Amino acid sequence: MVTLSSESTPVGGSAMELFQLLRDGGPRTRAQLAKSTGLARSTIAARVDELMRMGLIMPVADAASTGGRPPSQFALNPSARVVLAADIGASHTTVAVMDLTGAILLKRSKPIAVVEGPVPVLTWLVETAEALLADVGRGIRSLVAIGIGVPGPVEHSTGQPVNPPIMPGWDRFDVPGWVQQHLEVPVLVDNDVNIMALGERTVAWPTTSHLMFVKVATGIGAGVISGGELQRGAQGVAGDIGHVQVARGSSVPCHCGNRGCLEALASGPALARALRAQGLPAENGDDVIALVKGGNIDAIQAVRQAGRDIGEVLTVCVSLMNPSVIALGGSMARVGEHLIAGVREVVYARSMPLATEHLSIVQSSAAENAAVIGAGMLAIDHALSPEAFHSLAS
Amino acid sequence: MVTLSSESTPVGGSAMELFQLLRDGGPRTRAQLAKSTGLARSTIAARVDELMRMGLIMPVADAASTGGRPPSQFALNPSARVVLAADIGASHTTVAVMDLTGAILLKRSKPIAVVEGPVPVLTWLVETAEALLADVGRGIRSLVAIGIGVPGPVEHSTGQPVNPPIMPGWDRFDVPGWVQQHLEVPVLVDNDVNIMALGERTVAWPTTSHLMFVKVATGIGAGVISGGELQRGAQGVAGDIGHVQVARGSSVPCHCGNRGCLEALASGPALARALRAQGLPAENGDDVIALVKGGNIDAIQAVRQAGRDIGEVLTVCVSLMNPSVIALGGSMARVGEHLIAGVREVVYARSMPLATEHLSIVQSSAAENAAVIGAGMLAIDHALSPEAFHSLAS
Repeated sequence: MVTLSSESTPVGGSAMELFQLLRDGGPRTRAQLAKSTGLARSTIAARVDELMRMGLIMPVADAASTGGRPPSQFALNPSARVVLAADIGASHTTVAVMDLTGAILLKRSKPIAVVEGPVPVLTWLVETAEALLADVGRGIRSLVAIGIGVPGPVEHSTGQPVNPPIMPGWDRFDVPGWVQQHLEVPVLVDNDVNIMALGERTVAWPTTSHLMFVKVATGIGAGVISGGELQRGAQGVAGDIGHVQVARGSSVPCHCGNRGCLEALASGPALARALRAQGLPAENGDDVIALVKGGNIDAIQAVRQAGRDIGEVLTVCVSLMNPSVIALGGSMARVGEHLIAGVREVVYARSMPLATEHLSIVQSSAAENAAVIGAGMLAIDHALSPEAFHSLAS
Repeated sequence: MVTLSSESTPVGGSAMELFQLLRDGGPRTRAQLAKSTGLARSTIAARVDELMRMGLIMPVADAASTGGRPPSQFALNPSARVVLAADIGASHTTVAVMDLTGAILLKRSKPIAVVEGPVPVLTWLVETAEALLADVGRGIRSLVAIGIGVPGPVEHSTGQPVNPPIMPGWDRFDVPGWVQQHLEVPVLVDNDVNIMALGERTVAWPTTSHLMFVKVATGIGAGVISGGELQRGAQGVAGDIGHVQVARGSSVPCHCGNRGCLEALASGPALARALRAQGLPAENGDDVIALVKGGNIDAIQAVRQAGRDIGEVLTVCVSLMNPSVIALGGSMARVGEHLIAGVREVVYARSMPLATEHLSIVQSSAAENAAVIGAGMLAIDHALSPEAFHSLAS
């Protein structure tokens, strides 16, 4: 009966259904699986054996077991397959091999800049990926997907960067197609701030459905998770809050062609420029951080005000999306509490009580790993999805 | 074989799978259904017969048919069941019976105010619902769900209003539980602006996944559809943009306790108050509209500026969510192009080109029916969901 039933359902149909239950990593008994799926106990038994043979799930030690009995609980086997995750940044690129829980097995970085263009960067990425797989002792057949973050807008459906301002040569470049010439698995590409939001949720807020990750660095942008899903918007530019006009800045010109943009006032370069105008030695965001860490009052005040400017924009975001977490990351977040204090000051003063009653405004916990972990989660989510189960099971 | 396979799957499993394909209303052949599901042709034939017997799907005339052959295409039968939709407004309540496509079969309104409290309002709602069902000749067994919109924040999981400012007596009132004492079907409750967004999408933008509905009336609020889903936020107050501070208004007190809120400058009462201060006869929003329709320059300028104020807040929303449609509705939207011109002026001037290249800023098409249609869609989406299929098929 079990065999017959599988003839009239899609390949792996009920096995996939079980796997979707188990993919969260939590252990379940056969009885729990039967209850959740409505499948017969005999079907459950056969499908559990099938998934065990594929190596996708594994028995889990039963704390209440009295010994000698067959395993009664099963969970996703995190080592069943691996994914690759890459974070292509303005000045550095990082590649990592991760297991199916998102744990980094091995990671490598190189100061290769995105402006070198897609072919040099992706060539290094593919070579490094192959080397990392060899180093962790996993063959290419273990690899199920690749996630890549880039510092610019990406068309989600094709994985192609679209008019990326700091990525010359990458506009409409077929990143998935190029990578797949070397590594024949699904390749997911997304904006760096989007994957940072995924990474932050994975590391620090796994049960949160409404999280904003705000990157403050050379630019300012946000990754928005709402209703449990990353929100990319109609053209894939959701979260692009760096060019919202802020109240105090109407005369400051921005590289976008407008004036008074958040990015023109509160980014690392903007803060450095403002402090230089006061005669302080600040060439870039790192110098601003050094001044703040050294206790320079002017630098501390400037960073605090930058936090208020960011808070002004985030107040609207809080009203619109009602997140439960706002995490501040990016290189300028290292400046510490002065920035976040400015953000909190304005958001809590200007928002409706119901929207901020349970709102946490925090430093990113994932910090410099946010992007690469998020890129890995993008790959894992795809690899474990119902659509991809067929190739996972093959 | 077909019979055996259904023994080892949840009740109606593969019938539900077919129904989920057909619920969009589009006609499909048995071959298309087999291809989409991976089910055997014999299974498809049996399940199609089963769904036909339940009355959930119906044969569709085949344009290419040469006559005499059995029907080859099938689609959702929109008359199979009905839903009830209710829009509880500040001053009026409307109840409608709708078919499964969202078409209104019959509708009734009464000037019963939300301040009368939950029991009088819901008593009228239930009595009217029963009368409407009788009038369209449908028994209570045809009814599969009820959607209700209320003018305040709602906790999505329980359907209970939470701290609703203009709904005395409704705080934490168990709306679904009360209604279900009389009509034993699932009851979905949501904020009025959220259901207006659903209604607007249904009527005018059925293929859009990123839409904001902005209600401008006594208050100002937004319903946000992103990634195809209504976004309610962590506390269910997403879209509550009426209390964002706008640049020109820092000295104007708002009923929320802050100053310079959008609602304190650009709502109907705010416009009336400003025009009264100029010596014009404007007691409320309707008077403002009358002045504008009569060509009063001061009123036109005030409405245009209200549009700019709203546009200032929407610019941040556009950067954050990258919608493809912003629809303006609510009683003040009837004032016409002057309001929308102000919104467009600011949003197009202040947003990044990629975010506005394909952005439509329009008057609501659903207009006064937006809320009731949206409430119906809430009910229909629930009734046709996989989770509810069992009761639909019983």
